[in-house]
Amino acid sequence: MFWTRFFSGIGLVLIALFTIIFGGNILFATLLLISLIGLSELYKVFGIANKSLGIVGYLAGLTYYVFLYTMNQEKFLMLFIAYLIVLMVFYVFSYPKYNALHVIASFFGLFYVGIMLSFVYQARMLENGIYLVWLIFICSWGCDTFAYCVGMLFGKHKLAPKLSPKKSIEGAIGGILGAALLGGLYGFIIKDYLQGADNIVLSFAVICGIGGAISQVGDLAASAIKRNYDIKDYGNLIPGHGGILDRFDSVIFTAPIIYYLAVYLIK
Amino acid sequence: MFWTRFFSGIGLVLIALFTIIFGGNILFATLLLISLIGLSELYKVFGIANKSLGIVGYLAGLTYYVFLYTMNQEKFLMLFIAYLIVLMVFYVFSYPKYNALHVIASFFGLFYVGIMLSFVYQARMLENGIYLVWLIFICSWGCDTFAYCVGMLFGKHKLAPKLSPKKSIEGAIGGILGAALLGGLYGFIIKDYLQGADNIVLSFAVICGIGGAISQVGDLAASAIKRNYDIKDYGNLIPGHGGILDRFDSVIFTAPIIYYLAVYLIK
Repeated sequence: MFWTRFFSGIGLVLIALFTIIFGGNILFATLLLISLIGLSELYKVFGIANKSLGIVGYLAGLTYYVFLYTMNQEKFLMLFIAYLIVLMVFYVFSYPKYNALHVIASFFGLFYVGIMLSFVYQARMLENGIYLVWLIFICSWGCDTFAYCVGMLFGKHKLAPKLSPKKSIEGAIGGILGAALLGGLYGFIIKDYLQGADNIVLSFAVICGIGGAISQVGDLAASAIKRNYDIKDYGNLIPGHGGILDRFDSVIFTAPIIYYLAVYLIK
Repeated sequence: MFWTRFFSGIGLVLIALFTIIFGGNILFATLLLISLIGLSELYKVFGIANKSLGIVGYLAGLTYYVFLYTMNQEKFLMLFIAYLIVLMVFYVFSYPKYNALHVIASFFGLFYVGIMLSFVYQARMLENGIYLVWLIFICSWGCDTFAYCVGMLFGKHKLAPKLSPKKSIEGAIGGILGAALLGGLYGFIIKDYLQGADNIVLSFAVICGIGGAISQVGDLAASAIKRNYDIKDYGNLIPGHGGILDRFDSVIFTAPIIYYLAVYLIK
């Protein structure tokens, strides 16, 4: 089990490195695929993965990516409204096949999986995006590692006792500080490559600290949904790591946060 | 009961006439208020009206209207993401107070009530909006009336037997044709006032026909949600008419449709 997890972890990192460094269409296509798989994992939980409400969700996700790619961002709101109306058409004309919760779960999935993950691509496509995009992974995975180590050493007070009994407040703080430290260090290393930006070390530390806090919310949110539905893993796509939503639970939350912080804080 | 319904109906029409003709801030403030009340009615169904997840929803609704008013529409996506993340923070740190469905229901409410209704204001603020905005009400209420009359006279085949046993396919078609007829008639009356637009009669008929079809989906959707939760009315704000969501169930769906059809079809 350890070696399975280890080697598929290395595989994941290589895929991430390759697709993110190349960026452009390769990254775009990879994220679209990951989003659709993640969406199907979420929809499986709500029992609509292979039903009309799920299919409407996949099509909405696909349309969102097409709009993103073709720079039709002003049409996003129109897409969300069309999506909601089409869901309602299926809901009322197949009544009582679905209940209200199936409808709103399908709608929610587009945002939780498709849109949030697409910010990895959007961050990569920013000016200086080839440097900035890594902050997403530094704060997600860095925070995770630091939180684990600090929690093991100093953890005393429970963070969310009923949801994740092993997590401690000390670990959470350690994770945030560790992510900030890694972010600052990364900023120090690459600061000469970033054109026209000041205070990179401090900015990156602040961004990664905030990202680290949010990444823990993402981690807990995925756990909470799984607990509510009494499942262990969302899927088994990645040997030893579970499904897309198990492995990307923090990245889902940090990607948009890092994108917006980078846009607003780094000038 | 009839007179209560009759007089409060007249009251509603007068408020609609007054606020829509004035437009601007008066209409904006009225719709914001209606949206927040409608949101609280929906949240009552899902059991979060007075809880943190509900309050986050009202704040997201308020922020949406502020962004709309201040023309910060490019920030909508940022708002939706921030809303989702804040909901998740409350979800995980108060676990197991809420379940996943409370979270997604809060999220959904912003779109279903707040955003959809705001298109009455957006339609009114279009060029020629003072004429176009009435199409929303012509197709919603016109379709309703025609569908009822045609259904009573010719109704044979059930439209959605398990959801609304009294509705017929004949009535639904009659509603669509009736709405188209009223739309064309309205276009014929006002066509000389609309600047720089061609084929008004035909355009208005097509727009109102499509709007009539969608308005019936809105009506059925509100019924379906109420059936799933075994409630008769969403509220009792309007004597004889129920709550905001009972009275505006079709307008919620026709407002964005009429807005987009007007923007794309009327040149």
